[in-house]
Amino acid sequence: MNHIERGLEDLAALVAIQSVSAQGRNLPEAADAVTKLLEAEGFTVQRFAGQVAPILLAQTGNGPRTLLIYNHYDVQPESPLELWESAPFALTERADKDGTVRLYGRGSSDDKGEIAVRLAALRALKEQHGGQLPLTIKWLLEGEEEVGSPSLEGFVREHAADLQADGCLWEFGSIAPSGRPVLIAGVKGCVGLELRCSIANSDLHSANGAVVDNPLWRLAAAVASLRDANGHVLIPGFYDDVLPPSASDLEAIASIPDESAALQSAYGIKSFFKGASGQRFYERYCLEPVLNVNGFHGGYGDAGSKTVLPKDGFVKLDLRLVPNQRPAQIVQLLKAHLEQIGFPDIEVFETDASLAPARSPLDSAFMQTAIAAARDSFQLEPIVQPSSGGSGPMGPFVEVLGLPVVCAGISNHQAFVHAPNENIVKAHFEQGFKFALTFFTRVTAM
Amino acid sequence: MNHIERGLEDLAALVAIQSVSAQGRNLPEAADAVTKLLEAEGFTVQRFAGQVAPILLAQTGNGPRTLLIYNHYDVQPESPLELWESAPFALTERADKDGTVRLYGRGSSDDKGEIAVRLAALRALKEQHGGQLPLTIKWLLEGEEEVGSPSLEGFVREHAADLQADGCLWEFGSIAPSGRPVLIAGVKGCVGLELRCSIANSDLHSANGAVVDNPLWRLAAAVASLRDANGHVLIPGFYDDVLPPSASDLEAIASIPDESAALQSAYGIKSFFKGASGQRFYERYCLEPVLNVNGFHGGYGDAGSKTVLPKDGFVKLDLRLVPNQRPAQIVQLLKAHLEQIGFPDIEVFETDASLAPARSPLDSAFMQTAIAAARDSFQLEPIVQPSSGGSGPMGPFVEVLGLPVVCAGISNHQAFVHAPNENIVKAHFEQGFKFALTFFTRVTAM
Repeated sequence: MNHIERGLEDLAALVAIQSVSAQGRNLPEAADAVTKLLEAEGFTVQRFAGQVAPILLAQTGNGPRTLLIYNHYDVQPESPLELWESAPFALTERADKDGTVRLYGRGSSDDKGEIAVRLAALRALKEQHGGQLPLTIKWLLEGEEEVGSPSLEGFVREHAADLQADGCLWEFGSIAPSGRPVLIAGVKGCVGLELRCSIANSDLHSANGAVVDNPLWRLAAAVASLRDANGHVLIPGFYDDVLPPSASDLEAIASIPDESAALQSAYGIKSFFKGASGQRFYERYCLEPVLNVNGFHGGYGDAGSKTVLPKDGFVKLDLRLVPNQRPAQIVQLLKAHLEQIGFPDIEVFETDASLAPARSPLDSAFMQTAIAAARDSFQLEPIVQPSSGGSGPMGPFVEVLGLPVVCAGISNHQAFVHAPNENIVKAHFEQGFKFALTFFTRVTAM
Repeated sequence: MNHIERGLEDLAALVAIQSVSAQGRNLPEAADAVTKLLEAEGFTVQRFAGQVAPILLAQTGNGPRTLLIYNHYDVQPESPLELWESAPFALTERADKDGTVRLYGRGSSDDKGEIAVRLAALRALKEQHGGQLPLTIKWLLEGEEEVGSPSLEGFVREHAADLQADGCLWEFGSIAPSGRPVLIAGVKGCVGLELRCSIANSDLHSANGAVVDNPLWRLAAAVASLRDANGHVLIPGFYDDVLPPSASDLEAIASIPDESAALQSAYGIKSFFKGASGQRFYERYCLEPVLNVNGFHGGYGDAGSKTVLPKDGFVKLDLRLVPNQRPAQIVQLLKAHLEQIGFPDIEVFETDASLAPARSPLDSAFMQTAIAAARDSFQLEPIVQPSSGGSGPMGPFVEVLGLPVVCAGISNHQAFVHAPNENIVKAHFEQGFKFALTFFTRVTAM
């Protein structure tokens, strides 16, 4: 069995563990499985208690350079189950109509695929060097990423000395529709909120709607007030702390090839906001904050109709922030806005620990090493983005540890992360393996 | 066993049949059970096919006067099941903290309780007259009322000659918190709608919210645009056809004792719209149209958070109309409004057959007979309302048959019709029995 085959076997074993952090499922089991894989490769693994799941800090190798790798072994909930075409926790190979072979399963991309491909590359590197890694690898893995990494910032602060390195390889990254590798130097922040509205102590006959207010109308009006039809956030003060993009940010954005048409087709949508494409599309995606509705539930939802005035309802939101927006400040602004426009009764709860936005410089030696490794292993020019549209707990790595960070990995534009039918393209696993091996080698000589 | 005990036994048997029309459950079985009960009392029962459930037209008795009774044997869905304190389809006696004994079960009030109490009174009347009813009773029962009575108007038109009578006793009615009987001469119309919005062919990672619109935000903004925080409908043209209240409507409204404080406490709400009470409360409740949100569903709804951009969502609405609003016209106005404000992609479906609003005059001999019967049997002055806040297929009875109609029955302000823990007050069954017996007797001599 070669390194790729063995890596895919590791991936299948990890996907089979239903480590859903939002529901506290199988997190110690997943930590055990990862520990076993790392120890088999000579890592010393320390295990720390997190608020939701164990934190693992593993170390092996020896050399002039030290690379910190960050991943997470938890996954998003699999619901809605009925939209999966194969069992979410069984890694399943299936070919697209166009012949692309994919591996489906929750965590195949986010983030167990990245763990497996990096481990496979470390095995190959060790083999190339007579069983000894020529650099120090520090691998930090948590099981709380999908619930906002509530323990991570404290852990990084407490273990800052142990986590020192020449740079950090982030948990995710992707390969563009064109096949070019994507390297990313930052993430958006994220605040997860739930709005709740309760009117009566019981559902009522809807005839009472003539005299009794409706919690679902109140929630709808509150949600409607938060942004406009183009996604522009209407909470007063929301944009006050947003840093204008730097010249190098805009230069990087301008050099991103426009793949918005492929995304539009893959997602099956009619248009992006204001028909955005090209530079404007990537400005929005990488550099602008967002307010999203993740879920809205209340009242009757079965077949037919029910003339009921529901007693209550709730809405789940996420707000993705950019430097220098501060999560706590944004929550205060949102609460003040709801109060101001006549919804003081709508309760606002934070569903997850918040994440601060973070950006790492594009011109560091570490980033340039990643760019060279990507160019070398893919034989294609990498796409460099100043920030992901997604979020992650990168803040303390940049702010506390002062590390350059790069996101590089094997996700794809149809990976359906956080959604049914999450997958990786099987060929990307081999490409990601080659990139990681090249990158580790180049970091050694950095 | 006396007539009351036997009536309650009939009620328990009817409640046990899960005749949920919205879900097409057990409708022929419920029609069979009603037929058996009627035939045992000498009724000739004709059975006709409706679109959803059988329509029964039963007749018995002989005399100078003919009374048409209208009821329905279908019920609302029992969900949410977890909020019921006893099984919804098992009639269960339980005392309130204040000692009021109630009978709980789906349909106990709406509408099986009314069927059982009227049948009990007819048994007593027959007994008083040596086994022969002194008036003709025509009893029309359907099983589609809770889905908007899609077959009834056609049936009434087709069988208009068979349905001629001196007046119609409507399916529902209630006893006020003060113990005074409530008599009602009309109903609001009702339109049930579902709004649907779909954006993508799959749920997406919410990072895409920077460039992809959100179906739940669009639905929320659409719903928010339909009315204001005081329940005033904002659809252009919505109020154009509303008839101003007549002098006799306003006189009746002014004579309704203000029981809004008792309702507010029973419902556990902080305030009615604009703090309405007294005459303003009853004007809104009886005479003004309403737009209600019955349900709103889309995206993640389980514990914790999921950073997903949902592919779609839906909202269920009902609009309760007053004379002379026309359901089809209102649906057109709503669609035009959504198109006008930038939501042409939100699809609008009618979930039920619509019901037209209807009002019967307050000064008819038939209404005056009901008022006298209520005064006589309760020894209290009845409360007379020009219209219910609720709806029903009264339109063809008033418009096609030209009948005076009165609503009189045994529901109560804490009956939770259409909601969990639907009930009647046990003592009301006996009071309702006495009223019905008195009313039938007075109609005979009308």
